[in-house]
Amino acid sequence: MDIVIAGFGVVGQGVAEVIQQKGRALSEVFGEEIRIVGAFDSKSCEVSQDGLDPGALLKRKSMDGRVGKKDSDGDPWRILGGIDYDTLIEVTPTNIVDGEPGFTNMMIALNAGKNVITSNKGPLALKFKDLSRTAEAHDARLRFEATVGGATPIINLSRELLRGERILSIRGILNGTCNFILNRMKEEGLPFAQALREAQDMGIAERDPSYDIDGVDSACKAAILANAIFGLERTYSDVKRTGIRSVTEEAVSLAAEEKKVIRLIGEISGKRLEVAPRLVPIGHPLSIGGTRNIVQIHTDLAGEITVAGRGAGKFETASAILSDLVALLKENQK
Amino acid sequence: MDIVIAGFGVVGQGVAEVIQQKGRALSEVFGEEIRIVGAFDSKSCEVSQDGLDPGALLKRKSMDGRVGKKDSDGDPWRILGGIDYDTLIEVTPTNIVDGEPGFTNMMIALNAGKNVITSNKGPLALKFKDLSRTAEAHDARLRFEATVGGATPIINLSRELLRGERILSIRGILNGTCNFILNRMKEEGLPFAQALREAQDMGIAERDPSYDIDGVDSACKAAILANAIFGLERTYSDVKRTGIRSVTEEAVSLAAEEKKVIRLIGEISGKRLEVAPRLVPIGHPLSIGGTRNIVQIHTDLAGEITVAGRGAGKFETASAILSDLVALLKENQK
Repeated sequence: MDIVIAGFGVVGQGVAEVIQQKGRALSEVFGEEIRIVGAFDSKSCEVSQDGLDPGALLKRKSMDGRVGKKDSDGDPWRILGGIDYDTLIEVTPTNIVDGEPGFTNMMIALNAGKNVITSNKGPLALKFKDLSRTAEAHDARLRFEATVGGATPIINLSRELLRGERILSIRGILNGTCNFILNRMKEEGLPFAQALREAQDMGIAERDPSYDIDGVDSACKAAILANAIFGLERTYSDVKRTGIRSVTEEAVSLAAEEKKVIRLIGEISGKRLEVAPRLVPIGHPLSIGGTRNIVQIHTDLAGEITVAGRGAGKFETASAILSDLVALLKENQK
Repeated sequence: MDIVIAGFGVVGQGVAEVIQQKGRALSEVFGEEIRIVGAFDSKSCEVSQDGLDPGALLKRKSMDGRVGKKDSDGDPWRILGGIDYDTLIEVTPTNIVDGEPGFTNMMIALNAGKNVITSNKGPLALKFKDLSRTAEAHDARLRFEATVGGATPIINLSRELLRGERILSIRGILNGTCNFILNRMKEEGLPFAQALREAQDMGIAERDPSYDIDGVDSACKAAILANAIFGLERTYSDVKRTGIRSVTEEAVSLAAEEKKVIRLIGEISGKRLEVAPRLVPIGHPLSIGGTRNIVQIHTDLAGEITVAGRGAGKFETASAILSDLVALLKENQK
């Protein structure tokens, strides 16, 4: 399997490290050599049909702040044009306005019949229909476990392990930052603004926290789950959305009196697509604190299955990408 | 796929109902007809190379207390001898002394190169080596998701979705009955004997509760996980085991003062194989009450992934068997 990595920030570097660590073992298990034949970031590009050394890419990025020797001049595909590859790992940053540059990268690959694995929520939450139809038309595979829940295997669990079940609904905490803030408000009796500042100081919330606290990130993930698991074609603006800005100390302490906590819950089913603060009884799986993501998958036979894991992080995201990569390798064995 | 169902108790009936409900849809998805060509219980046997109607089997069992018209006289394989089939669904009751009749049923199938799907813990916890080597020697597949955690997809999640990861350890609650008892002791301040009686009255614990409360059931599951996920060859007697009989009210209330609960935890890794009561901080995922099963899977990349679900029940167990059936159907597409 010849791979191009688009984006060489934290996630792209995590992917390169994982391939460096595990590539040889996976190659042996699946009887297929795994090579990185191209990698680019916003400034630069590096290609070699014979395979690039992940260690050298990581070293250059760390020393020079760029993955490649060649300037990409805003169009890495010009340089990549001559390269033969099988799979694009698209890990440029999420852009929720127009999905770029991820959307274009993915469409170039899919139109050429190449498989895409991505952690990039923007294109999936904005233009799922275009991507999935292009993939289908060119018999390419599009996998995106890493877009929802970080290391938590929500999509592959639902689509593969529960394939014989009818999935009725999914409910869960899809954003660790909101959960951290809500939990601190409850545990320490903090007002929202102070809990937010604390999260910002700890690097859990961004300086501009709107993407998290207004529920945009959760709504993107809810839309992706609606598409991936319920076969819908939704964008994140189809999600009914209320963030946590207006959750007051009083509301949190009133909830606590009733042995409940407030959690930002995404609810996804064939009929419902919403992100909003909800009361959750203490002791219920969705009452967890911390920054983990957690979902409950309700099905006709299993009842409900709960799955939780780390929602973000370099290796956690790389873990989800790896699980998609392994799925492709396994399919290639057919 | 032509199936023989061995055992037609609660789980066997659940499997027949699921095949009745979903068989046609699955046949269409995977391009392979799914038929029950044989079924037997302790008394009787029914076979038809053209396929049996699951509804008729269920009706006879419910009316006459037996699945088949023919007496099996203790040797259903005599009647089944002439039948061609692909997969044995072995769902006779767990027997932890010698694994019978499940072990013999499985060995007959595996030696004939037939795949086996089972919910029967006995043979897996006692004679895993024999089973796995026989399967390997005859190129047959042996799947047993339903032996651990009921509907909770612990084995397939670990072996398939996390296949690229290094699994470092698994810790969790593998027996819902013990968890119910421990939780009632804590919530209501009940002594062990009273919480046990309550569980027995509710049908959660057996009249002879030893299998659950002495940790035998958990130890069987721990051994199966050690074999399935860590590549070991352990039996349940290799598991260091302490049950919950000697957990006192005082211990539970002392734990509560430290914001902890006592839970019967199975711990499985390459080096450790133990079931024992442990202190778990309230709020930790493994502090859950109720009868659910829950495990935390620790890996090199994902950190830890928690998965929880219903540990027992007719359709819950059938759900796990279905997931194995779907995996076989998917592999057959190759």
